[in-house]
Amino acid sequence: MTHAPDISSITQILGGVCAPQGFSAAGVHAGIRKNRSKADLALLVSSAPAATAALYTQNVVKGAPLAVTKRHIEASNGYTRAVICNSGNANTCNPGGESMAEQTAQALAQTLHIPEESIIVASTGVIGEPLDPAPIITALPQLSAQLAATEQGSHAAANAILTTDTHPKEVAVEFSMPAADGNGEVPVRIGAMAKGSGMIHPNLATMLVFITSDAAISPELLHYALSTDVQSTFNMTSVDGDTSTNDMVTIQANGLAGNVPITSADTAEFALFAAALNSVTMHLCRMIAGDGEGATKLLECHVTGAADTATARALAKSVICSSLVKSAMFGADANWGRVLCALGYAGVPFDPSGVRVSFASAAGSVLVCDAGCSIPFSEEHAKEVLLAEEVTIQVHMGDADANARAWGCDLTYDYVKINGDYRT
Amino acid sequence: MTHAPDISSITQILGGVCAPQGFSAAGVHAGIRKNRSKADLALLVSSAPAATAALYTQNVVKGAPLAVTKRHIEASNGYTRAVICNSGNANTCNPGGESMAEQTAQALAQTLHIPEESIIVASTGVIGEPLDPAPIITALPQLSAQLAATEQGSHAAANAILTTDTHPKEVAVEFSMPAADGNGEVPVRIGAMAKGSGMIHPNLATMLVFITSDAAISPELLHYALSTDVQSTFNMTSVDGDTSTNDMVTIQANGLAGNVPITSADTAEFALFAAALNSVTMHLCRMIAGDGEGATKLLECHVTGAADTATARALAKSVICSSLVKSAMFGADANWGRVLCALGYAGVPFDPSGVRVSFASAAGSVLVCDAGCSIPFSEEHAKEVLLAEEVTIQVHMGDADANARAWGCDLTYDYVKINGDYRT
Repeated sequence: MTHAPDISSITQILGGVCAPQGFSAAGVHAGIRKNRSKADLALLVSSAPAATAALYTQNVVKGAPLAVTKRHIEASNGYTRAVICNSGNANTCNPGGESMAEQTAQALAQTLHIPEESIIVASTGVIGEPLDPAPIITALPQLSAQLAATEQGSHAAANAILTTDTHPKEVAVEFSMPAADGNGEVPVRIGAMAKGSGMIHPNLATMLVFITSDAAISPELLHYALSTDVQSTFNMTSVDGDTSTNDMVTIQANGLAGNVPITSADTAEFALFAAALNSVTMHLCRMIAGDGEGATKLLECHVTGAADTATARALAKSVICSSLVKSAMFGADANWGRVLCALGYAGVPFDPSGVRVSFASAAGSVLVCDAGCSIPFSEEHAKEVLLAEEVTIQVHMGDADANARAWGCDLTYDYVKINGDYRT
Repeated sequence: MTHAPDISSITQILGGVCAPQGFSAAGVHAGIRKNRSKADLALLVSSAPAATAALYTQNVVKGAPLAVTKRHIEASNGYTRAVICNSGNANTCNPGGESMAEQTAQALAQTLHIPEESIIVASTGVIGEPLDPAPIITALPQLSAQLAATEQGSHAAANAILTTDTHPKEVAVEFSMPAADGNGEVPVRIGAMAKGSGMIHPNLATMLVFITSDAAISPELLHYALSTDVQSTFNMTSVDGDTSTNDMVTIQANGLAGNVPITSADTAEFALFAAALNSVTMHLCRMIAGDGEGATKLLECHVTGAADTATARALAKSVICSSLVKSAMFGADANWGRVLCALGYAGVPFDPSGVRVSFASAAGSVLVCDAGCSIPFSEEHAKEVLLAEEVTIQVHMGDADANARAWGCDLTYDYVKINGDYRT
């Protein structure tokens, strides 16, 4: 970045995916799930064509909706209008899965009078059970009738995409950019909703995240902004080490804010947009990790003093992925040797004798390892620190000045319970 | 191998590490652990210098005993006499850890009247707590007095090296080789004991495994045999994805069997020795995985029809490492979509539409996925198959004819319980 952004104008606001102008959303129970009290079909619509970028799972086994979405975004030259997403069935490893996703898109195109290729299709749930498009198609008129450009609309959609999540995940921010009409500044917004609780260990793309904005920006710059951002956000989040077949992040920006269009990555405006996007995605990462299946607490590993950013990221991610660290955190046990162990198998070189480890939370901070060795500390105080709902594992490498953060959660009885019998 | 070995003579026998001639062992409670009913110090001695090979953890953070052992094996030109191993404290990330390990070796050298550099030192237990050598040194006379070249001696040592393991892990085999005196054939033996239940995800070397043999073979060929063998055995075993700081496998062969010395890898004798070694290490892998922390069952993933061996291994290991697969197996839930998902993020390319998956056990076999898609199967029968104590996840890739096996265990409430509060 040659221009430092003025991030002081970035403010968190209500409204989720409907906070940006021109976006409306809805969620209903279509009947994919047996439980009638759980909505299972979400719709998100932009009133104007929106520049779109998307990232997909790197899993070799990919859900059918991802292939259909990818074709649609290409066919629409990167300008989409809507997202349709069901929960309860991943539409993956089914004969004819793509045809089922296409049937949904065709029916929605007719209902909304928009091109079929302007529709993003997503699914999440059990793998390998055929998805019947009939209940989805039947529900479309009711779903579109309920579209609302409000906080409630976003909330209904955010609820409908959940699986084992315990609560919806929404966030929105507002910031100022130069007005296209030359008349001072205009407010620009980015909103998002996410689904993700298990099978969370994204690689390049991640879980289901739908981001909206009313910024004026090209599909190419959106893709650049998103693919850069995920390196330090979704790619640094893990619940259980399992990279899903259906992970997808999309961002749609419809330009209705009326800002001077962002046309170069080498501008203060792009940097501001990227910073606002980052505040949204980082917020989602913390929500997703903290709501990991069975989790009782959010873990953050903050690595500082590393040789370079790639090293810092590898170290931070190794710590939050360690089953032994995660179990110790569940037990509020200051077993820092497991942190050293996880650093050691991260696959990057470092000098163990330079490592310092602390645990920190709202209850305080406790240094537990210095120069790679044990030091005396109060077990009682450490227990207090670790009993908090958000715990930071602070690791200083003593090599150089690169740093990284990664997010995860503790490993609990309930993770095993939830996943021991998920299908039945 | 240019000479196919005659493996028909390989027979399992009793005696563990003491089955080969000239090896004696013992185990006592030295006081490293507070619980007096748990032995915590093991000794293994060869009556003659034994050609020795060792492999160590690839974790950047390494236990002090590994550094000392490596120096000793080099200084003794690859011929050692004894192994001393304590449990309850890993002697890792402590100031002065190597000095503590050296003090133990010095005291044992005096007790046994053997060179200090002929001693292998190993530790397992909590990381980052200073290890006091005093109780170990005090216990050495009693320990050496109890040395026995018997099944009981092996058993006492195998018990003393355990941590969260629920039972000792010992195995021994016998086979025939040409006698050095030209007088027909002589029996040759390989024995072993292992410790390993958590922090098990070895990489090149693994957990603590001590292998003994009375074969006549050089240190160089022993190293070749061991480092080749671990690729398909210990490196294909995982309990929790955590590669320990203290992993070590040693093999000592004292030549007392009187066989024609094995001097080339290109002989039927070496191939037979390697096959016998493999039968010992594979047995240990199954024992270690089946006794994984909290495990209720042993999981084997058998991948066939893969493009090449490296691909087959990556796929098999990815499946047995998946927290979601492991949780499903605990719940006896035939959630094969998670198997497909884990194959998909193994980091190797394949065509999902060629994949076939079955679950098999003593209760039968059930095909659950064909051509990468769901097929109808009896959930009741699948449940019966998965309720067994040993379950094989059979994956056929449909690409070529390479295959691999990997071993792991289910993820259970007890894994979380054991590791939520291991230190206290």
